[in-house]
Amino acid sequence: MNSFQGHKKNILRKLKEEIEDGRVDSKVISILDAINSLPKYYTTSSCAGRILLLELPKIGDKQNAIFLGRWHHKISRDDILDAVSNATHGGIWLLVQSPIFHIAAEDLDSAVRLLKTGYAAGFKHSGLKNIDGRIIVELLSTERIDTPIGRNGILLCDEEFLDFIVENANYIIERCDEKLLRLQREISSLRL
Amino acid sequence: MNSFQGHKKNILRKLKEEIEDGRVDSKVISILDAINSLPKYYTTSSCAGRILLLELPKIGDKQNAIFLGRWHHKISRDDILDAVSNATHGGIWLLVQSPIFHIAAEDLDSAVRLLKTGYAAGFKHSGLKNIDGRIIVELLSTERIDTPIGRNGILLCDEEFLDFIVENANYIIERCDEKLLRLQREISSLRL
Repeated sequence: MNSFQGHKKNILRKLKEEIEDGRVDSKVISILDAINSLPKYYTTSSCAGRILLLELPKIGDKQNAIFLGRWHHKISRDDILDAVSNATHGGIWLLVQSPIFHIAAEDLDSAVRLLKTGYAAGFKHSGLKNIDGRIIVELLSTERIDTPIGRNGILLCDEEFLDFIVENANYIIERCDEKLLRLQREISSLRL
Repeated sequence: MNSFQGHKKNILRKLKEEIEDGRVDSKVISILDAINSLPKYYTTSSCAGRILLLELPKIGDKQNAIFLGRWHHKISRDDILDAVSNATHGGIWLLVQSPIFHIAAEDLDSAVRLLKTGYAAGFKHSGLKNIDGRIIVELLSTERIDTPIGRNGILLCDEEFLDFIVENANYIIERCDEKLLRLQREISSLRL
């Protein structure tokens, strides 16, 4: 067994445990299975799309970010208000993140083929990354929100505007589900 | 002359014209020159970082986006209010985008070397793209804002909150300038 297939075997064993422990979003499991059934690829991480509320000491300082809230489903205004009540200092940022998948490919040709599959499924921000010396395909869709909404424990927008942001966030989360279905279909075509 | 060097010659001729016509942000010219002086690379597009106000008929429908405002420098609340006055229908989105560079590399090893240079300069969202059948290095920093602020011609946040968003946008634009200096230094080390 070469080193790629050896790594794949280890990673898939860990993935199986994570799925059994309920630590993998059920919306992505069938996509992970479809990719991992192809000999030249294995998945290394994934997220179905999520809404985050973060406290950032400084813009861009994600290493010191505090997670005030994390949701993989639609939210209400009260979810944000409850989470903001735990904020203390720094910028309070609302992030909505599209589905993301990281996949190791055995060679560059396979990586580019999967990248094009991602583009075809509407994952337009996809690219290849260099992670731990390996070429990793990152499949990433474009819809997102990144905005500060408060500072030093205080929400700075009024509740009507917060409702408007939440409505947009929930629309993106719905759209993520459609994007996942498109990706699932496009991945199937990779078998051919 | 091989096809890579032939393309490079054409692209650099066009870039020279664009610089002479004042269509390239002066903040990035020395970085473009530094990259283009290296035999295995040529730049295909770039932006020093910018603030955009867009009208989007639907989230993610960037093809039908209308540009209400575009700034490569710090802005004031009035810049946004003036631009919003031209909005008519659809979501009004404020975007702050970090510096971005697209660079063709002659081979995968050179592409990965430049990608690592980007990571070292804090361009953490960098990756390789497949564009027109070529591998293109995208150097992209992480700081950004993407948020709806109104709909159907109407600003939905109050002016105090708009000031807060503008303050954050301007902070990012300042930080972009520092990031460009870091990139300039890291690119110099590629010569060694």
